[in-house]
Amino acid sequence: MSSEGLVDVVKEAKKASLWLAQVRRLTKDDALRAAAREILLRKEEILRANTIEIANAEELMGKGKITPAIIDRLKLDQYKIGDIAKMIEEVASLDDPVGKPIIAMKLDEGMELFKTTVPFGVIAAIFESRPDALPQIAALCIKAGNAVLLKGGSEAQETNRMLFKIMRQALASKGIPEGAMWLLEGRQVIADLVKMEGLVDLIIPRGSNDFVRFIQDNTRIPVLGHSEGICHIYVDAAYPKRTTEIIVDARVQYPAACNSMKALLLDSRIGPKMVEYIATKLVEKGVVIKGCPKTAEILRAQKIPVMDANESDWSTEYLDLVLPVKIVNGVDEAIAHINRYSSKHTDAILTMDKNVAKHFLRMVDSSSVMLNISTRFADGYRYGIGAEVGISTNKIHARGPVGLEGLVTTKYILLGSGQKVSEYVGKGAKAFIHKRIIGNWESRME
Amino acid sequence: MSSEGLVDVVKEAKKASLWLAQVRRLTKDDALRAAAREILLRKEEILRANTIEIANAEELMGKGKITPAIIDRLKLDQYKIGDIAKMIEEVASLDDPVGKPIIAMKLDEGMELFKTTVPFGVIAAIFESRPDALPQIAALCIKAGNAVLLKGGSEAQETNRMLFKIMRQALASKGIPEGAMWLLEGRQVIADLVKMEGLVDLIIPRGSNDFVRFIQDNTRIPVLGHSEGICHIYVDAAYPKRTTEIIVDARVQYPAACNSMKALLLDSRIGPKMVEYIATKLVEKGVVIKGCPKTAEILRAQKIPVMDANESDWSTEYLDLVLPVKIVNGVDEAIAHINRYSSKHTDAILTMDKNVAKHFLRMVDSSSVMLNISTRFADGYRYGIGAEVGISTNKIHARGPVGLEGLVTTKYILLGSGQKVSEYVGKGAKAFIHKRIIGNWESRME
Repeated sequence: MSSEGLVDVVKEAKKASLWLAQVRRLTKDDALRAAAREILLRKEEILRANTIEIANAEELMGKGKITPAIIDRLKLDQYKIGDIAKMIEEVASLDDPVGKPIIAMKLDEGMELFKTTVPFGVIAAIFESRPDALPQIAALCIKAGNAVLLKGGSEAQETNRMLFKIMRQALASKGIPEGAMWLLEGRQVIADLVKMEGLVDLIIPRGSNDFVRFIQDNTRIPVLGHSEGICHIYVDAAYPKRTTEIIVDARVQYPAACNSMKALLLDSRIGPKMVEYIATKLVEKGVVIKGCPKTAEILRAQKIPVMDANESDWSTEYLDLVLPVKIVNGVDEAIAHINRYSSKHTDAILTMDKNVAKHFLRMVDSSSVMLNISTRFADGYRYGIGAEVGISTNKIHARGPVGLEGLVTTKYILLGSGQKVSEYVGKGAKAFIHKRIIGNWESRME
Repeated sequence: MSSEGLVDVVKEAKKASLWLAQVRRLTKDDALRAAAREILLRKEEILRANTIEIANAEELMGKGKITPAIIDRLKLDQYKIGDIAKMIEEVASLDDPVGKPIIAMKLDEGMELFKTTVPFGVIAAIFESRPDALPQIAALCIKAGNAVLLKGGSEAQETNRMLFKIMRQALASKGIPEGAMWLLEGRQVIADLVKMEGLVDLIIPRGSNDFVRFIQDNTRIPVLGHSEGICHIYVDAAYPKRTTEIIVDARVQYPAACNSMKALLLDSRIGPKMVEYIATKLVEKGVVIKGCPKTAEILRAQKIPVMDANESDWSTEYLDLVLPVKIVNGVDEAIAHINRYSSKHTDAILTMDKNVAKHFLRMVDSSSVMLNISTRFADGYRYGIGAEVGISTNKIHARGPVGLEGLVTTKYILLGSGQKVSEYVGKGAKAFIHKRIIGNWESRME
């Protein structure tokens, strides 16, 4: 798509977004349910498109351009299509994030102030090659009253085109304008999108750290995303078996997940036997341990395999079975290490001591802090906030797992009856009342 | 201050901020009240410092480097010092923005999730030369549990130093660490600050549009601020006298304010007589009208002074008595004009027609939208949210007038009892409960 063509598309999306912002919940939910139904009904078409995709991918794999893992991820079957339809229905069932009252206040007689949630407008989402990414992001954006520009990976092009076509038609059949949803293709699109400040209201990049970082560094449009997941577990003192199981879960269950444990801190008072026990269980699962000098000494004495950790290991996000391990003296050293090296995604403490736990949970400056549980629980679905747009390590706007609430902003609405500021300043100025009231601005206009 | 010196300061501030994050409300409020008392008690010292300042400024004025308006703004007297003390006490009386429960949910037996507000950490504020700016920003930041780096204008250096010294001593006397508050001086400091991603958590720039824009363009640290206030009033149809009074108030009462009306849209159906009447009243107040062709034609026919508006007038923020005026056909043309040219700060409609009003309030994509009232009401104090950090035209984080709620972020706290994610996936997986509960995480730890 040419840059000019893209500007036209974004303007159309903006127009649709203003319309969508004032649509009632029922219309949006009906449209999403229709999309879910159509995806089920037209699953043969989707599977055919996916078959072409897989054939193309296998050809690329023959040329060494694609790994078998990517092909696995691209592949759809009827069960996965069923899951996609179910996910869209779940989004339809979520509370409407738009129009939530935040402030309702009488400022003076005949002067009422309201603050309410409103959609962002136009959201550009750039996402990885997973066939459920497009319907998930599109459903969440539409539910939150936004128009959405969808840019998926070229490997998933055929399937994305088909899913997009079916969803857009289904939404349109229930009155959602076609301009509310666009599929973008081609690499140039990203370079153009990041420049569209004032037209695009939010960018959601998903993918590698480097990619997210690239987007953040090259745009003035707000970005919702996280670049790294350097998550820690600090073991203060807890039952050996449960502690070790949690550690193994956090490192091994899904090594490449952003919320998996990337470094382990062991308090020196747990003693060498416990260090050996934990290490043995990790090594059994194929984990390569990179130890600080003390850890390395303890493990080498017992002939447990260990490499020497160097400074850069503490700030590296290992997405495979590698684990830097450090022995620290006390919770404060652990907190200092985490606040220095953590990507502020998720960090956990394992302890039976409530005071130590409290101190850790308060002092660690991360989006999720946890007690006696695996870091892998940091996730929108597990947190019960519904489908997840992503996990934010930003401190502004949404922080941590982000659901629908991250796709809306707020707006003040002031209803007056002819007041001038000059009546409220200087001698004999009128005073404000500032009294909380009940209700929303629209009910005042009936 | 050298760049290395600044890094040390910011690290000290970070340390203090972690401590401050867990301080109870009473400590913070006591400390702020002590600061207010000390400012009153030591007013002679403050006035002496201010006298030196004014003498320096008058010397610069002699050299043409400073305007009389700046000297007026710099000048303190005992009443203004009284207002500063009162403002700090008011901040002490506000609700604590830290520790507010946002989510409390049982995910499963022995697994509870909480989301709560927490301070940002270290806030860097760069502000204009008004003697109340430093105590206001410092009080708000400390109340919200943040350490604050204060950088004022060099013209206000003497007064700022004295206010800073008194506040810091008073806060320290009530147990707030000295590291929580720093005064920075010198131009180089700004260039260094914007690079301190990961150390500084939020930048609040106040000042000219160009300055705010410069900060936004040169940092990856979140910025809370607004650059422009191109605010509109659209007159659909309303009583001539009240309408005109609101228009005059919005343009004339404080022309340089960010929330003053910068362009006026008149619906064609209000008729030429009304256009003439509004224009006459504005001209009487010294306003220079720049009219669209239709406006110019109507006014010239009656010999009312008018200049021709050109395209750039619609996107220019006139901070003096200049007013571009355009005649539009219907509310949709007004909405389209505003969504195109507004800086999305504050836009108002004057009308008696509730349906037209509703449509306007919904469709205009600005941080404050208003009905039958002057745009000048867009202000934290008038909105009843307490002292104002600034007005944000960002859509992420805080939008509109920003008080204490803009100085905190959120954190998830997950309290587990040994759970692993592997128990919740695959065959025989445990299910989540996701049930809202009452309480906060700290009460669970007692």
